[in-house]
Amino acid sequence: MITSLHNPKIQQIRALIGRKQARDEARAFVVEGVRLAEETLAAGWRPSLVLVSSELNERGRAVVAEFSNQGVEVEKVDSHLFDSFSDTETSQGLLVVLSQHILAIPEPLDFVLIADRVRDPGNLGTLLRSAAAAGVQAVLLGPGTVDVFSPKVVRSGMGAHFRLPIYNLDWQAMLKICHPRLKIYLAEAESGTTCWQLDLRQPVALVVGGEADGAGPEARQAADGQVKIPMPGKSESLNAAVAASILMFEIVRQRAGQ
Amino acid sequence: MITSLHNPKIQQIRALIGRKQARDEARAFVVEGVRLAEETLAAGWRPSLVLVSSELNERGRAVVAEFSNQGVEVEKVDSHLFDSFSDTETSQGLLVVLSQHILAIPEPLDFVLIADRVRDPGNLGTLLRSAAAAGVQAVLLGPGTVDVFSPKVVRSGMGAHFRLPIYNLDWQAMLKICHPRLKIYLAEAESGTTCWQLDLRQPVALVVGGEADGAGPEARQAADGQVKIPMPGKSESLNAAVAASILMFEIVRQRAGQ
Repeated sequence: MITSLHNPKIQQIRALIGRKQARDEARAFVVEGVRLAEETLAAGWRPSLVLVSSELNERGRAVVAEFSNQGVEVEKVDSHLFDSFSDTETSQGLLVVLSQHILAIPEPLDFVLIADRVRDPGNLGTLLRSAAAAGVQAVLLGPGTVDVFSPKVVRSGMGAHFRLPIYNLDWQAMLKICHPRLKIYLAEAESGTTCWQLDLRQPVALVVGGEADGAGPEARQAADGQVKIPMPGKSESLNAAVAASILMFEIVRQRAGQ
Repeated sequence: MITSLHNPKIQQIRALIGRKQARDEARAFVVEGVRLAEETLAAGWRPSLVLVSSELNERGRAVVAEFSNQGVEVEKVDSHLFDSFSDTETSQGLLVVLSQHILAIPEPLDFVLIADRVRDPGNLGTLLRSAAAAGVQAVLLGPGTVDVFSPKVVRSGMGAHFRLPIYNLDWQAMLKICHPRLKIYLAEAESGTTCWQLDLRQPVALVVGGEADGAGPEARQAADGQVKIPMPGKSESLNAAVAASILMFEIVRQRAGQ
């Protein structure tokens, strides 16, 4: 059982939790909790290391047994020590280290989400979760977007990381992927075509900006058009992840022929 | 200038930030930051007290000047002291104390949101923000829902608190408001009628449960039907506030005749 914060494995995990640079260098990230570990298993991702504490419940122990059967290294950790480095408020005593697999982008492309300058980790995670549910084929992250493998993004993504091809790219590279097939539509709060009136059955890349600053100038230049959600209420403001999710499911609706 | 944490006004504000009981007893709550203070002003809500620190920017000082013109009490607070009790990560040096006004429910009712057992403050705030944008006429909060005046709900509500009639009720009282005019539809992840195929132009109360546990048994019993969002992707999971927002804007779409 690991009992010291100075154990090299614990040191590395703390670095992976806390620092983008450590995640980039190791091409690894950390997933915490039973539900996300189950998603890891279901998606067939093989951890490089699993940490457990005595706090782990039965459902969690079943997941660990599966990993163990697959030959994954499982280490027991003192439960107080576990809580001291866990990024969650109430640790469940289960932590999984994974490589940053990059899934291939399928062809032909019809449904892409581009997140540009989305700086809030909860918003990016929620965007990914909605994208996975809506059947988005690839998510492209523009410059200035928060690290997709940071713990809070992973947590609010609820397993989307294991199901979606996610790429960090500059705008030139994003355009190479989108052109000439996809129409690029920028989601705007106050200008553009009403989403219901735009033909979203055609192959589309939806661009979503960050909550505070919106999308950057390259996104504006790249867009073939702007799309907005009409807001009949007294306020004209939606959370960025909510607005993008409404638009993604409007695409789903139109393509279902409804 | 207030410099001590023991100042009675600071003590009361700390209680309002930290404890539901204190908010309930004083029928008051706290709003932080320039943007929300602007919303307060725009909605015509008059604070009982405004606290400012030397950190406040020009935009914020303009808001304070307006409040001051209206005869609102404004107190200067030492900026280190301000940071020590602020609920935000980076305080802007502006805090407003407000009474819990309850806006009247308009008639006739056609569009109501019911939040049942929504325990996550960020989710409840985001729900309120979407409801205000979608033109929801009243929000009813069932038992087991997080305190709507807690700082995190207020923050993610982005001013919805000033625009929406919001009521804490038991199910009997909620049904009195809804019956017989409104159809009550419970949002479900995996069962019910597809939202596009349900006639949502009729007067509707949409019931949304919490992320972890869903809605309670009374909500299930009260519902005239269940409604779901089809998810063509590999995952079938949406954030609770996102799912409710998609359904609210589906109601908007149908009523716009689109």
